[in-house]
Amino acid sequence: MNAHKTDLQSSHISPSLAARLACRSGTMTGPTAGIAPGFVQGNLAILPRELADDFLRFCHLNPKPCPLIGMSEPGSLEVRTLGADLDIRTDLPRYRVWRDGILVDEPTDVSAYWRDDLVTFVLGCSYSFEEALMADGLPIRHIEACSNVPMYRTNIACEPAGPFSGPMVVSMRPFKPADAIRAIQITTRFPRVHGAPVHIGRPDLIGIKDIAKPDYGEAVTIHDDEIPVFWACGVTPQSVIATVKPAFAITHAPGAMLITDVRNTQFAIM
Amino acid sequence: MNAHKTDLQSSHISPSLAARLACRSGTMTGPTAGIAPGFVQGNLAILPRELADDFLRFCHLNPKPCPLIGMSEPGSLEVRTLGADLDIRTDLPRYRVWRDGILVDEPTDVSAYWRDDLVTFVLGCSYSFEEALMADGLPIRHIEACSNVPMYRTNIACEPAGPFSGPMVVSMRPFKPADAIRAIQITTRFPRVHGAPVHIGRPDLIGIKDIAKPDYGEAVTIHDDEIPVFWACGVTPQSVIATVKPAFAITHAPGAMLITDVRNTQFAIM
Repeated sequence: MNAHKTDLQSSHISPSLAARLACRSGTMTGPTAGIAPGFVQGNLAILPRELADDFLRFCHLNPKPCPLIGMSEPGSLEVRTLGADLDIRTDLPRYRVWRDGILVDEPTDVSAYWRDDLVTFVLGCSYSFEEALMADGLPIRHIEACSNVPMYRTNIACEPAGPFSGPMVVSMRPFKPADAIRAIQITTRFPRVHGAPVHIGRPDLIGIKDIAKPDYGEAVTIHDDEIPVFWACGVTPQSVIATVKPAFAITHAPGAMLITDVRNTQFAIM
Repeated sequence: MNAHKTDLQSSHISPSLAARLACRSGTMTGPTAGIAPGFVQGNLAILPRELADDFLRFCHLNPKPCPLIGMSEPGSLEVRTLGADLDIRTDLPRYRVWRDGILVDEPTDVSAYWRDDLVTFVLGCSYSFEEALMADGLPIRHIEACSNVPMYRTNIACEPAGPFSGPMVVSMRPFKPADAIRAIQITTRFPRVHGAPVHIGRPDLIGIKDIAKPDYGEAVTIHDDEIPVFWACGVTPQSVIATVKPAFAITHAPGAMLITDVRNTQFAIM
């Protein structure tokens, strides 16, 4: 009997809880893209209480790169607004543990690292709006190419809060101009998952020197009849946390997100 | 006693009706830009009944350049959805009368030309969405420059209906990229007055060879940190009617629109 198979195929629990249970049991350890389609996935940042207030303020001041969709009480393992049966220590496929800004472990379970002063932050992720774009028939280049979205550090400064500051990171998707307009309309409906783009057209105007050389992810082809469209990216808070080098922090491993019980459509504001 | 002054200053009628009465009495004969702010202004096309069905279908098939906001019964002087006290023969500042596609008169009153087979069409106009853009703090270059908006024939073909066919005409407003995104969001709310842009960025992709040489209106400066944003334009149906060369037609004179009792905000879909 395969526990993973049983979890995912069980008909009386939601696909999102099935995925979390598969993570909890250790059978799901890889990327979450394509898992539990229709459900919101979130970026994870866990910080000691002494940094939590400043980080919360940072999210509040920078809602486009840091759209906070869930937060825990200090020490709590739950994020009640995102899932009924949720243990933040075990329910992601893989984590990254940081000490003084240095990556020290990539476990599938952070129970051994848990402390009562830790505060969990969950931030919205572009998977939700990409699902809405594809549902509308818009092609997404990096998904067609089976690669990671290209991401770039910009010259747009985030609003600082306490020790947290730094440049906004953006993700880029090329579209034909009419599709770019449609993509702006669609993503405007999803402010809790980065919302409308922050820039369109000329990369140089936001400090991107070479569109073919992203700072994160992989480059994609931009055809001659397309323009690049830039969204605020959830890598921004990770990059900012890395700069602050907190004594202790936990994040999700890249691509291994928290799968929540909230449906993507529930985040649409209209 | 000045009748014009009395009409416009009367406190118990709306500014829109006051403007129509001033047109009716012959005291208002010039452009309507800036008159009765907050009220929808419309493009006028009056056609013989034998062409009306095809033109209606043309509007239906091409809602972005031809957003039909009002239509009369054949021979009727009223457009009831747009104003309670409205005589379409007299209530615009100035008209153009066409015979076989040739401009034969520019009167302030078309009562002498009226026929029982004429059908009135009123189409939404960009003044409504420009008001919403300015209310949001977005600068509109041609208004700052006190010039007409630049307009261009494109290689985008309208959907044909009967004898009506031809290229879409677009108007162009330059914006910084973040403002362009905001302008898309705002104008999306106004589908009855051209709605969201049809194109953004590269003019060549829609057949515009030289952005400095508009086909109608006047060129505006595009700064180095701006991109051109293109909206479907109400000149499209006028250009299409001119091509068809109907035996008889009446339109508004450029800039001398019908001022309606509908408020711009009432056309916002959200």
